[in-house]
Amino acid sequence: MGSIVAENRKSLMLFSGRGFPELADEIGEVLGVAPTPTDAYDFANGEIFIRFKESVRGSDAFVVQSITHGVNTWMMETLIMVDALKRGSAKRITVVLPFYPYARQDKKHRGREPISARLVADLLRTAGANRILTVDLHTAQIQGFFDGPVDHLFAMETLASYVEGRYAGRKLTVVAPDSGRVRVAERWTDRLGGSPMAFIHKTRDPLKPNQVVANRVVGDVEGRVCLIVDDMIDTGGTIAKAADILFDSGAADVLVASTHAVLSDPATERLKNSRISEIVVTNTLPLPSEKRMDKLTVLSIAPLLARAIREVFDDGSVTTLFGGLS
Amino acid sequence: MGSIVAENRKSLMLFSGRGFPELADEIGEVLGVAPTPTDAYDFANGEIFIRFKESVRGSDAFVVQSITHGVNTWMMETLIMVDALKRGSAKRITVVLPFYPYARQDKKHRGREPISARLVADLLRTAGANRILTVDLHTAQIQGFFDGPVDHLFAMETLASYVEGRYAGRKLTVVAPDSGRVRVAERWTDRLGGSPMAFIHKTRDPLKPNQVVANRVVGDVEGRVCLIVDDMIDTGGTIAKAADILFDSGAADVLVASTHAVLSDPATERLKNSRISEIVVTNTLPLPSEKRMDKLTVLSIAPLLARAIREVFDDGSVTTLFGGLS
Amino acid sequence: MGSIVAENRKSLMLFSGRGFPELADEIGEVLGVAPTPTDAYDFANGEIFIRFKESVRGSDAFVVQSITHGVNTWMMETLIMVDALKRGSAKRITVVLPFYPYARQDKKHRGREPISARLVADLLRTAGANRILTVDLHTAQIQGFFDGPVDHLFAMETLASYVEGRYAGRKLTVVAPDSGRVRVAERWTDRLGGSPMAFIHKTRDPLKPNQVVANRVVGDVEGRVCLIVDDMIDTGGTIAKAADILFDSGAADVLVASTHAVLSDPATERLKNSRISEIVVTNTLPLPSEKRMDKLTVLSIAPLLARAIREVFDDGSVTTLFGGLS
Amino acid sequence: MGSIVAENRKSLMLFSGRGFPELADEIGEVLGVAPTPTDAYDFANGEIFIRFKESVRGSDAFVVQSITHGVNTWMMETLIMVDALKRGSAKRITVVLPFYPYARQDKKHRGREPISARLVADLLRTAGANRILTVDLHTAQIQGFFDGPVDHLFAMETLASYVEGRYAGRKLTVVAPDSGRVRVAERWTDRLGGSPMAFIHKTRDPLKPNQVVANRVVGDVEGRVCLIVDDMIDTGGTIAKAADILFDSGAADVLVASTHAVLSDPATERLKNSRISEIVVTNTLPLPSEKRMDKLTVLSIAPLLARAIREVFDDGSVTTLFGGLS
Amino acid sequence: MGSIVAENRKSLMLFSGRGFPELADEIGEVLGVAPTPTDAYDFANGEIFIRFKESVRGSDAFVVQSITHGVNTWMMETLIMVDALKRGSAKRITVVLPFYPYARQDKKHRGREPISARLVADLLRTAGANRILTVDLHTAQIQGFFDGPVDHLFAMETLASYVEGRYAGRKLTVVAPDSGRVRVAERWTDRLGGSPMAFIHKTRDPLKPNQVVANRVVGDVEGRVCLIVDDMIDTGGTIAKAADILFDSGAADVLVASTHAVLSDPATERLKNSRISEIVVTNTLPLPSEKRMDKLTVLSIAPLLARAIREVFDDGSVTTLFGGLS
Amino acid sequence: MGSIVAENRKSLMLFSGRGFPELADEIGEVLGVAPTPTDAYDFANGEIFIRFKESVRGSDAFVVQSITHGVNTWMMETLIMVDALKRGSAKRITVVLPFYPYARQDKKHRGREPISARLVADLLRTAGANRILTVDLHTAQIQGFFDGPVDHLFAMETLASYVEGRYAGRKLTVVAPDSGRVRVAERWTDRLGGSPMAFIHKTRDPLKPNQVVANRVVGDVEGRVCLIVDDMIDTGGTIAKAADILFDSGAADVLVASTHAVLSDPATERLKNSRISEIVVTNTLPLPSEKRMDKLTVLSIAPLLARAIREVFDDGSVTTLFGGLS
Repeated sequence: MGSIVAENRKSLMLFSGRGFPELADEIGEVLGVAPTPTDAYDFANGEIFIRFKESVRGSDAFVVQSITHGVNTWMMETLIMVDALKRGSAKRITVVLPFYPYARQDKKHRGREPISARLVADLLRTAGANRILTVDLHTAQIQGFFDGPVDHLFAMETLASYVEGRYAGRKLTVVAPDSGRVRVAERWTDRLGGSPMAFIHKTRDPLKPNQVVANRVVGDVEGRVCLIVDDMIDTGGTIAKAADILFDSGAADVLVASTHAVLSDPATERLKNSRISEIVVTNTLPLPSEKRMDKLTVLSIAPLLARAIREVFDDGSVTTLFGGLS
Repeated sequence: MGSIVAENRKSLMLFSGRGFPELADEIGEVLGVAPTPTDAYDFANGEIFIRFKESVRGSDAFVVQSITHGVNTWMMETLIMVDALKRGSAKRITVVLPFYPYARQDKKHRGREPISARLVADLLRTAGANRILTVDLHTAQIQGFFDGPVDHLFAMETLASYVEGRYAGRKLTVVAPDSGRVRVAERWTDRLGGSPMAFIHKTRDPLKPNQVVANRVVGDVEGRVCLIVDDMIDTGGTIAKAADILFDSGAADVLVASTHAVLSDPATERLKNSRISEIVVTNTLPLPSEKRMDKLTVLSIAPLLARAIREVFDDGSVTTLFGGLS
Repeated sequence: MGSIVAENRKSLMLFSGRGFPELADEIGEVLGVAPTPTDAYDFANGEIFIRFKESVRGSDAFVVQSITHGVNTWMMETLIMVDALKRGSAKRITVVLPFYPYARQDKKHRGREPISARLVADLLRTAGANRILTVDLHTAQIQGFFDGPVDHLFAMETLASYVEGRYAGRKLTVVAPDSGRVRVAERWTDRLGGSPMAFIHKTRDPLKPNQVVANRVVGDVEGRVCLIVDDMIDTGGTIAKAADILFDSGAADVLVASTHAVLSDPATERLKNSRISEIVVTNTLPLPSEKRMDKLTVLSIAPLLARAIREVFDDGSVTTLFGGLS
Repeated sequence: MGSIVAENRKSLMLFSGRGFPELADEIGEVLGVAPTPTDAYDFANGEIFIRFKESVRGSDAFVVQSITHGVNTWMMETLIMVDALKRGSAKRITVVLPFYPYARQDKKHRGREPISARLVADLLRTAGANRILTVDLHTAQIQGFFDGPVDHLFAMETLASYVEGRYAGRKLTVVAPDSGRVRVAERWTDRLGGSPMAFIHKTRDPLKPNQVVANRVVGDVEGRVCLIVDDMIDTGGTIAKAADILFDSGAADVLVASTHAVLSDPATERLKNSRISEIVVTNTLPLPSEKRMDKLTVLSIAPLLARAIREVFDDGSVTTLFGGLS
Repeated sequence: MGSIVAENRKSLMLFSGRGFPELADEIGEVLGVAPTPTDAYDFANGEIFIRFKESVRGSDAFVVQSITHGVNTWMMETLIMVDALKRGSAKRITVVLPFYPYARQDKKHRGREPISARLVADLLRTAGANRILTVDLHTAQIQGFFDGPVDHLFAMETLASYVEGRYAGRKLTVVAPDSGRVRVAERWTDRLGGSPMAFIHKTRDPLKPNQVVANRVVGDVEGRVCLIVDDMIDTGGTIAKAADILFDSGAADVLVASTHAVLSDPATERLKNSRISEIVVTNTLPLPSEKRMDKLTVLSIAPLLARAIREVFDDGSVTTLFGGLS
Repeated sequence: MGSIVAENRKSLMLFSGRGFPELADEIGEVLGVAPTPTDAYDFANGEIFIRFKESVRGSDAFVVQSITHGVNTWMMETLIMVDALKRGSAKRITVVLPFYPYARQDKKHRGREPISARLVADLLRTAGANRILTVDLHTAQIQGFFDGPVDHLFAMETLASYVEGRYAGRKLTVVAPDSGRVRVAERWTDRLGGSPMAFIHKTRDPLKPNQVVANRVVGDVEGRVCLIVDDMIDTGGTIAKAADILFDSGAADVLVASTHAVLSDPATERLKNSRISEIVVTNTLPLPSEKRMDKLTVLSIAPLLARAIREVFDDGSVTTLFGGLS
């Protein structure tokens, strides 16, 4: 009678932050498991309260949170959820961040700046996260900011399949909207079978990070259908200016493919008014009706996330199934 | 020529978050040092950008931040400022939090809850804070949540001096508005020379943390000037109900003394409409004009904080000078 | 032949410190598993030697230790046992502390003091403890001192059931022996169906932590059966003085219910000589015969601990079954 | 007589690894302090022994190490030196890595790879390094891999001044040798007053990291003097192929500017045989005579490093003086 | 549908560094599992690249690495493999080091030295190792350098069985080649049934760790078959000199038993030329043909390691099966 | 007015645990600084309370504690003092342990044992100790258990000077009382100019660590004055048996030199009754009158400790002045 021996089963539980619960529901439907019922509300001064309504003890917990507008609120909510899971004895905690916040502050552009993307990784670790599952990091090096496994998924396959289907036979040129995205554009040209590429050579004022000055197109775009690729569309300024320059340089048409539709004001207005004919994005972030427009095509990221979660739970390979990086 | 030897001087620098810059200015005036010029703004999706305009290398840095409404934004801003100071080679980083956020979530009230007050301490530590300086923690045990020195100051002396001066000769009874505050009330009776005390015996519904049900007064308040003491006034519900019961029990008058004027809606309305004759608070949190009212007396906490910062910088004793706890 | 796959079973093992082996035995009997045979003895200078006589590799280990008189010896023994389990490859280590030591030093009462209750949590963590299971912490905030799950059990149900059964029909008033216990007393009034409550308003000299000066009863106790509730009885001074004041204030009878019977000298003598009619405690700490007396009723805490251990092992819910906090 | 008070002076000491002692000597000459005499040798099986011949207690220690060929040996030597400084009570340890090793493994290119650049940062931290001072990281995000201050210096000013002086009046086009370097090239065009730019669009086989397939020039280079810029030249394959394509596309001349002259075989042969007219590098890594050639111009990085070390010691601003990033 | 429940199986995977792949193969054959296919090669400047060709997610990973000549390369390779396993989501990582590197630098022999053996333990921990499995540490205290379980195996049984069989009936005296090995020799005398022992009293110059000056034999060796025991043979100097002195003191014959055959130059030459009749070692390190000689007997350590790995995987007892220390 | 600049002075403060306050006083007298007044007492159940009566903010704190009988109490007191210093903002905390506790449990002698000497180091680190200063560790490897600087002093010079003076001209043979001490004895023979040495070959039963079985002398002691050297005398059994064997083997006289006089019962009785003529020790541990005897010579360790503390404070070299190891 030296010990009690029991079978060791494992149990996947899904948790949803309030940033974009519909995405968690959609993932849950694919997986066949509903997000765990949770009390979540704000106190009058903005402090967040979280309580899970079912035992989480021993669970393999996946916390799905879209860090959308009001980034800091959803970031803190995520941390508080992870803390509650840790103290409630969850066995392993994976934070599913379809959009990784503060990814653009991934280095000190000048002295005496924070590296907020690293800070985010450390905060998640401190709260108790064991692993991160995310989509299309602004720079892949952010994987290395987290002291633990990061499953980095790519939406390119989802976006590119759509583009291929819809624009079959058109003369596509892949365009990087700035110098930092040329590497991404190169990956798209590989995916699209070796199409030509170009990029917008511009000057960025380091003191005003959201404002850029587009200069000129490097590469040949005359008469081509230009596909601008980027990881995210925030205020849409970069994209809109790029489109203008491309048309000025003789482009036949301009499309945009981008994973993260942040669409901060005045993105929707800008893009509506631009000559861009279609913008293809995924729903890593919620898209309220006022941000939607006819030329905006939204593809669901839920199937990709659901399959990744299932592989992680089953100790399968995320790499081989999704072309992801882990 | 084995080494270069130089004098080792130390340098106090003050940094201000955007939660309540006027308080940092006021502290700076007392100290004779202005807050360091800082670029701080929000990106369109809410991400915060911070950059200090002067070198912080080697400094003894004090970050003053009032975690007021929109708590999560100011919390994240504080963490980002600390990260920037750490990476900019500040020598020591003290976070001055006149109001410690999430202090009420200092334990699991029921299962599967976070302990957010501990989480806050750990996040600050992770970002790079070496020390915390704060005022009137909701429970003193929160000191123990931080793995490092916490200088815990008391506003009681500031508040009590005012009350003594203004209500000299009146028959005061100190009243705790709920059972958790009786220990604080007891400290006030000691400070006020042994006045009687009472408390409101009530039932709190653990599922709805901001709502309470006041039951009855325990202790004798008939014909007395009741001084309700509390660490903070949030929505004012507890205080207003306590006042009603006290008047119903024969109180001659009701005053309130409280360090932190959170004053979330509908606090101002409630307190205005109550029969409370005066509410004395400090400016640990900003008080915009719409929250002010005639019966509200605001005392400045800046002198106390300034003297504490100076003592910390000079390696003096915070304990002996201010009656603080460290 | 890329890997060897095997069934992953889990195994509960019980370990007993020398503080109160009878309690571990009792828990083991309920669970149906005997404490693991262990060599444990002191070297001549007091250094402790521990060696487990059976393999602990891969086990889900529960270390039961009552930190009774000679607190530091049992604390160090616990740490050494945890170290031996960690180095012996136990899979998970839960420290079961029916009585959490140094709980009263949970904050700096004045400057330049330790926060020993936090230190205890950190020492356990450093040695290798993954989780703590404890009963009736002096303040619930101590949960937050440990960086990991704390299962906090309440003995109130055990004690209250007994009191209800034995004192059915008597007019009970719940009394907090000092201002810090009023919140606990309030919980008892809820449990006992809304009985009235009172508390002893006293002055504590912060320089001499074990000595208090009782002043007067706040609340009405005339003709009532007073039930003094407290988390622990140490030297019995507070309780005995409270009883005197209650009788002086007209109490019909005085009972005491307390979880932890520390009973340091001269507690037994004091309580024997007091007019208190019954003292109900649990056996979270050993009670040698010389501390026992007729009016002392000892209820066993073993069933509660055993059920909690089993739930932890089975990944069940401690919250729902026992009204505990996790 | 409660304490002994003494003046607190600080003392800069320089330490040199065996990777490139001449650089440390050169830095020491600029600073006016010789590297500390050190016993350093290898045991027969390759284990490294380090002992400093003078007391390092309380020093502000700067360890200069060029992680040149035989990277792992110099990496381990650096770690061992840092450990010896930590255990010898140095007050602060700054590791000066003119060339950061494993910088190209800054992310998982595919699944199941290490992120060795993060590992390097963590190893340095674990050994006891408080700070890193480095030059032209392969990607700036590596700053965020280290949990502490990283002073990131740029050699661009040193290289660009030389190029400007020597090629004044020539029609320069800045060329990125691959898509990942376009952002760097853009910074050069800004520095050179807005010269045009181009890049080589190529396909990289992720399975064979050192081999690339250059495709075509994007941008106009006809009749231009092409300045290929890159952070490092390793085997020279990328550069040599880029030059060929540029000449094929009508370039008038091709120059190369690169900070780190790794020059692994067969780099020297390749570059000698290429039509590149001049290659400008710095001495962040040692350049033995067999790697030198007529068209190779080596500029010293020592003045930049010496000034940065002095600023760090003096708590001055590295940002303002050198255009560096901290 | 609150959770997905699945069986929790565990899976042993074997990984081999490039230090001595034949040993890993041999272990794999005993276990019945082949080392996982791995891409491993050096870049031109010596940086190591590692990629596992199969998913390692959820595995119980054992990394076998013999840290042979070129110690730093194999050490870094081990760290990089562990990092790749951690980031690839291995569940538990055990580093199997048949020979623990830098074990002789287990303390500061004089001031300002590193403690490299502790550094090695910390580096492994930082990279992500959960546990170490090793053979015959230079000093057993090195177990305590690692913050986690260390399974310390002894080759004495393997070596002693062979010696007993081959030298049955001979008059053996166990000899420690220096004062630091007397404790080990004592253990051998116990194992060999109480044979006499002796040791070589010598002076070691702390400035030149690999050179020793043998003085004289303490103990009686006249006419005896002397068995010199040591944990490792590096350059063979200590052993060869000990043999000379033993023969000078009248020894009939001299044998050597040693676990680790480092055999740095000129060990093979020295031992060949010595009058030692047989040297018995294990293959914890690779023995290339140029190091082999007729009088060298190599016993395989693979069965011991394989059985230990299997016990660790199965949560069995390493202590009871192998006489190991955990 | 960007910062307040002040001179940065440093201040040495001395703190004394209750284990052996007279030693701290003696050290203080040499240094010219009295131990800081401290409230220190035990609560009734053994919990320790500590409060420093003067501000410790910014101090360079040295905590002197002799971990004498009742080891666990003094260990916990040390940890609590360090915690109070950390939370009271001491700048640097050095724990001065003349006798390092649990040093004999420096490895797992068999499976499932703790490594308590490492645990002690980790506990000190966790509480907040930055550095350890100690004398004659049982094994020098313990230095490596602490993650920070350890200044390891040797009492050999103090003891040997006395022995040399008093026994000049006598034929000394240095004797190690067991195989683990032969290395130490060898150092003594070096110090005493090359005197011969011997050791006691014995069998130790690993199950009963305090009991040994002495077998026979290895080495020649006939007619010699035998000087047994050991780091500590605990129960005296090893020493007394060694003396008996030495006399049986023809020794002319037997002396003992040992740093730490633990002298647990029945050491004093045993040594008194032995034929040992003199026992020379230091006062690293208190020696109450009942442990003293005529043949016991006690040399003060205070001058050595005082000078080391002063050097540490002044950033001097402990290595060069005292022959210590750091």
